Amino acid sequence: LFPEMVTCLWKIFFHTTKDRILQQRNMYSSSHGYQEELIKQKLQQFAGGSINLSKDSNGIGVLTLNNPKLMNALTGSMMVELQNKVTELENWTDGKGLIICGAGNTFCSGSDLNAVRAMSTPQASSDRHCFLEKRSFQLFWLPLISVALVQGKAMGGGAELTTACDFRLMTLGSEIRFVHKHMGLVPGWGGGTRLVQIVGSRAALQLMSTAAGVNPERALCLGLSDGTLSSSEEAASLEEARSWLSQYTEGPASVIQAMKKVVTVARELPLESALRTEKDVFGSLWGGPANVQALARKVKHK
Amino acid sequence: LFPEMVTCLWKIFFHTTKDRILQQRNMYSSSHGYQEELIKQKLQQFAGGSINLSKDSNGIGVLTLNNPKLMNALTGSMMVELQNKVTELENWTDGKGLIICGAGNTFCSGSDLNAVRAMSTPQASSDRHCFLEKRSFQLFWLPLISVALVQGKAMGGGAELTTACDFRLMTLGSEIRFVHKHMGLVPGWGGGTRLVQIVGSRAALQLMSTAAGVNPERALCLGLSDGTLSSSEEAASLEEARSWLSQYTEGPASVIQAMKKVVTVARELPLESALRTEKDVFGSLWGGPANVQALARKVKHK
Amino acid sequence: LFPEMVTCLWKIFFHTTKDRILQQRNMYSSSHGYQEELIKQKLQQFAGGSINLSKDSNGIGVLTLNNPKLMNALTGSMMVELQNKVTELENWTDGKGLIICGAGNTFCSGSDLNAVRAMSTPQASSDRHCFLEKRSFQLFWLPLISVALVQGKAMGGGAELTTACDFRLMTLGSEIRFVHKHMGLVPGWGGGTRLVQIVGSRAALQLMSTAAGVNPERALCLGLSDGTLSSSEEAASLEEARSWLSQYTEGPASVIQAMKKVVTVARELPLESALRTEKDVFGSLWGGPANVQALARKVKHK
Repeated sequence: LFPEMVTCLWKIFFHTTKDRILQQRNMYSSSHGYQEELIKQKLQQFAGGSINLSKDSNGIGVLTLNNPKLMNALTGSMMVELQNKVTELENWTDGKGLIICGAGNTFCSGSDLNAVRAMSTPQASSDRHCFLEKRSFQLFWLPLISVALVQGKAMGGGAELTTACDFRLMTLGSEIRFVHKHMGLVPGWGGGTRLVQIVGSRAALQLMSTAAGVNPERALCLGLSDGTLSSSEEAASLEEARSWLSQYTEGPASVIQAMKKVVTVARELPLESALRTEKDVFGSLWGGPANVQALARKVKHK
Repeated sequence: LFPEMVTCLWKIFFHTTKDRILQQRNMYSSSHGYQEELIKQKLQQFAGGSINLSKDSNGIGVLTLNNPKLMNALTGSMMVELQNKVTELENWTDGKGLIICGAGNTFCSGSDLNAVRAMSTPQASSDRHCFLEKRSFQLFWLPLISVALVQGKAMGGGAELTTACDFRLMTLGSEIRFVHKHMGLVPGWGGGTRLVQIVGSRAALQLMSTAAGVNPERALCLGLSDGTLSSSEEAASLEEARSWLSQYTEGPASVIQAMKKVVTVARELPLESALRTEKDVFGSLWGGPANVQALARKVKHK
Repeated sequence: LFPEMVTCLWKIFFHTTKDRILQQRNMYSSSHGYQEELIKQKLQQFAGGSINLSKDSNGIGVLTLNNPKLMNALTGSMMVELQNKVTELENWTDGKGLIICGAGNTFCSGSDLNAVRAMSTPQASSDRHCFLEKRSFQLFWLPLISVALVQGKAMGGGAELTTACDFRLMTLGSEIRFVHKHMGLVPGWGGGTRLVQIVGSRAALQLMSTAAGVNPERALCLGLSDGTLSSSEEAASLEEARSWLSQYTEGPASVIQAMKKVVTVARELPLESALRTEKDVFGSLWGGPANVQALARKVKHK
């Protein structure tokens, strides 16, 4: 019954289809709104913790997993909140970057198994399953350049969550650990597949089959981390991550979002679709405000 | 006529389709059993050497290519034996790892061209071709974490064979060499394609177009090797490889086999299919014995 | 209107389909010859610069982008010439390698925006668009092992052009720069997608979103460059590049072209198609002159 729950989460956060990219967002929300509400109500019953979102004027959002007494494990209500926040981020026209972090100096220990187990038992219906399949938002496909800021531990589902970001930054002493084997499991949210994309199949097989913790140094060497932060205190490391990310988010939001899209499709889609999308994204920018202003500046400088 | 033979081998050992993964094993064996036997009989006429398989109680198998007077080149009868042994490995419920090595302190020099040339000439039929296309077993898709233990030379088809394993370990003084150019050929068993997957397209093009031997140091640097063994004596290096591999095979066979599957599909299939398979593999473990025992241990520790 | 032009260029130089590989070259030229001529006439109106091609007796061609007063930006007439030269190279039976370089100690600054803008405005028709979609030649799919020799600057479209080669060599002091962001744009010729293939999605996102210049040292480290040349003088660096490339082009043209094809399909196509193509390419060489001669040499040596 837990797998069914994973299916839903997977649909919500990780699912990717060619069609989906071309879909207008929210196209399913009207016809399926009722069922969506039902599922949300069910999830809400397993309450605890929160997902906090702040958005700054530079176009960088910070999404905080906040359930420190369970190492930020995701409860039912946090899943609903996460969905809501991600939707908010999708519609953030001025957004360019996103930092995902955990409260209390740690990242995330996965899903709150007790809650999930309890709720998935009886009423889990295929209606819910089908409905979620249509959900159009995903963390991975957010038009923002995303960074997982790993403090403390990113374990199991938490480790998987880091792979749904474009980059990972780690504080000294932190650890990413695909601990699934010790639970008699493998990743199930797409984290195994994405780990192969990030570090290659050989290192992924080694990390998963040993369930060994990966420290910042080794993660950097493998490409699993993109930088080690010097501060491990919560606020200071967040500022450090924000500063690191802002290197990549300078400029008009339309252009940064387009960059992200070109890279995402190159990583996610067959080459031919990626090439076509790149051309289309280019076309959407040509003659737009950012392009016109840039050309005007060029003429001026002559 | 040799290409037709290669086609058959390719179908037997390297062919991959999305459907195949979902197929029940051996589903074709009944209806096509007769033709299979015919081909096997033909191959058996080109006898010599053997394929030896040993399986230990820790779930690690050792497959030895044994035709030392021809540097372990594969004869017709060895191909039949290889197919049989791989089928045996597919059905090894307790299996977790596999070491492929050669007898007489060398790996493999490819196929025994004389035999292949002789046998492919007259009776090669498209029936045989079609039949083999349906064969459901493959070395690459074995549910075991596999390592090629390269002593001495892995040349041509032997070099290709190493790429069908998850990992490669090399003894000091050994060499992997894509020597095909010197035969006026390119790889044909999938080794060119898989080399690109392992070392990238640029290094693959360099290795193939120079036909240069790759020593353990360079192979390690390119990612073609995953470790250099300190002993080059046959039995000692095998023990070293076994010890290296056992790092990744500790735990229940069902979980290790699932890990291997998640990584294989991530490497082999389009992203969307890989994500879906990961979810399904996860679902197959949830609530199973390994998962239940792990959860029980967790509760106990509290 | 510029995007439409990019679409055309993209179709001409970068478009890739499975079908295309299997197509006979020039199969569309007869039925669509008239429209092709129309487009060429239009492009010809935006004249300036030239594309020079020399072919040596060792099977190495040198394609020079020659418009030094605009840093070798591609004018309309240069695009037509480029198409003609690439066709010539496709039909070069003895060809094995290709060096693409720029005149006047620099590589290329992309397309001549003024010309493109002017010409794309009024008569741009979907006929033209459709016609070009059918064009069968491409830079990337040339059967030659290709190297971009980067002297000076490879900017914007010029940076994209380097990614259409198998390898990149850089002279000291040269720079590759995906400067699109400063124009309010993203790559549109496939250079974003191919950059992800070459350096991975994380480095690609960093290079594109910062629009930072990449010097030879950093490019080597990222895998964007395959070697730094010691001479930066035009003729000397060309000789150095030719010598570098000739390591990979020794041997019969049929075999070198086959190597290139195996690697190209492994990089471009889904695994299953790549494996099938590899087998077919192998089959096309077996029993051919290069193979027969190689076998004869082997027998002789015995």
